[in-house]
Amino acid sequence: MPPTIQPDDIRAAAERIRPLSRRTPVLTSAVFDAEANVRTHFKCENLQTGGAFKIRGAANLILSLPDVSHGVIAYSSGNHAQATAIAARHVGAQATIVMPEDAPRSKTEATRSHGARIVTYNRFTQSREQIADQILKETGAMLVPPFDHPMIMAGQGTAALELLEETGPLDALITPIGGGGLLAGCATIAKDLQSAIRVFGAEPEGANDTFLSLMAGERISVQPDTIADGLRAPKPGELTFPVLQRLVEKVALVSDDELRATVKFLLIHMKILIEPSGAAAAAAILFHKLPADLRAVGVVLSGGNIDFEELARY
Amino acid sequence: MPPTIQPDDIRAAAERIRPLSRRTPVLTSAVFDAEANVRTHFKCENLQTGGAFKIRGAANLILSLPDVSHGVIAYSSGNHAQATAIAARHVGAQATIVMPEDAPRSKTEATRSHGARIVTYNRFTQSREQIADQILKETGAMLVPPFDHPMIMAGQGTAALELLEETGPLDALITPIGGGGLLAGCATIAKDLQSAIRVFGAEPEGANDTFLSLMAGERISVQPDTIADGLRAPKPGELTFPVLQRLVEKVALVSDDELRATVKFLLIHMKILIEPSGAAAAAAILFHKLPADLRAVGVVLSGGNIDFEELARY
Repeated sequence: MPPTIQPDDIRAAAERIRPLSRRTPVLTSAVFDAEANVRTHFKCENLQTGGAFKIRGAANLILSLPDVSHGVIAYSSGNHAQATAIAARHVGAQATIVMPEDAPRSKTEATRSHGARIVTYNRFTQSREQIADQILKETGAMLVPPFDHPMIMAGQGTAALELLEETGPLDALITPIGGGGLLAGCATIAKDLQSAIRVFGAEPEGANDTFLSLMAGERISVQPDTIADGLRAPKPGELTFPVLQRLVEKVALVSDDELRATVKFLLIHMKILIEPSGAAAAAAILFHKLPADLRAVGVVLSGGNIDFEELARY
Repeated sequence: MPPTIQPDDIRAAAERIRPLSRRTPVLTSAVFDAEANVRTHFKCENLQTGGAFKIRGAANLILSLPDVSHGVIAYSSGNHAQATAIAARHVGAQATIVMPEDAPRSKTEATRSHGARIVTYNRFTQSREQIADQILKETGAMLVPPFDHPMIMAGQGTAALELLEETGPLDALITPIGGGGLLAGCATIAKDLQSAIRVFGAEPEGANDTFLSLMAGERISVQPDTIADGLRAPKPGELTFPVLQRLVEKVALVSDDELRATVKFLLIHMKILIEPSGAAAAAAILFHKLPADLRAVGVVLSGGNIDFEELARY
């Protein structure tokens, strides 16, 4: 039985990360609701420190480490990298980030601006795990995994804790799924706060590893192909997957076109900038992929780090 | 002595408009602060109902009208129109909006979607006041002026009331100036809550009527030429101007290029969409137009209604 998380781990995380994480606003939109046909409450993690929910998990882990004198290391396509860099600087630790060469420029620049050392790799020919392992051995740094760690899952769950504290009872909660850390944490606390709440996840059609894994009853790998760079984890985590198996009713799949349309909709009608990965759960609602009988839904808009040039192309 | 407003008018407005207006979030940004060299608290009225602060004033006036059975009428380049339409629908009144033919499409469409009747005019050859007067005579509708009315000023002031309740003591407050209703209301409540607070306004260089009027000691007209369509009022209001004369230390002028750069900065670094008019006060801070000794500033981001096509051109 792998280590899992309890609701109180998320409550403890909420206390621990307070110096670093923001209580982001919860917004609503009559225009979105009319289109989606359901009252939707948006937890705006694009307005979070670092522009994504990732600071919650990274801070929860890093602030609980007894010794960070040899630094911390993370491999990430972007938002987890920034979060690790910000949390490391907060405790005076050197962060080393292993990043794909083709990560969005907005993310590499932001990570560097937080004082992190960046090591790049080719994601088609090199293994980021091997590169990270080598640096770990050389430096004695502590690894901050992107999702598959109890402290990371518990930290991410604080997004749902804050959301449900603010909204009160909801019929359902939905978040995007990359490796599953966000949804594992959010589902755990949501079911504890509101036992009747239904929990959903959203994945790109081109990165549907959790969808397939839940169908198969075991963790399945895919070759991700989607514009949602934050959701390209090839398979669910060893620790996150059992939590999702237990608590998630369904994973909704959204196309890249639906992601783009949702980014544009949220920008025009709600005046907030969400990256494609961060819009996956909202896209599932907007394009009617959830059961039709839901009347009040909570959704995590998980991040907003998108290049202006890419946005202009939409 | 023209009718003016008292701080308690703004407190009464806050109660009155609660069914229609949102308590918008107050955001901060370490990246903005580093660039601007001052701690800045952003009151996000782009996230307000209708996408701008205008609902505050329109709702305050319309909800206080004893009889709206003959409808209400407004002339507006956009955000005040939407606000009037929304508030009118709330009380079951027909809204008629007199709008320039070349108003941004995002604004005309949104106004129509709220059930308003739209009458267009050519802003180079026709007088909107005359058209509105004629409709007033024909229908007996009540006029909802865009800024020069005590109830409008008091309503707009609730933005500063909420902001200062949330931030506590600040060195300064700054808002954009169109006709001056927002700043008149905000300055009145700000000085009452924090007697030492310094109050500033921001205008486009191409619509510097209040800047010139304060220098001259009397209301001066200009021919507005700026991308900030919400700030094109040609001269300060009869009621707003004396309030600004009494309470405003300085009006900072910003160029259209500075407005565009600020819109882009707020979008990339804060993940929020602000229209050029709404970014004027933030531009004044970002481009160091305020005194250098300020350490904590409050700013109203007054609206977010910008066409996606225009944004893509930036």
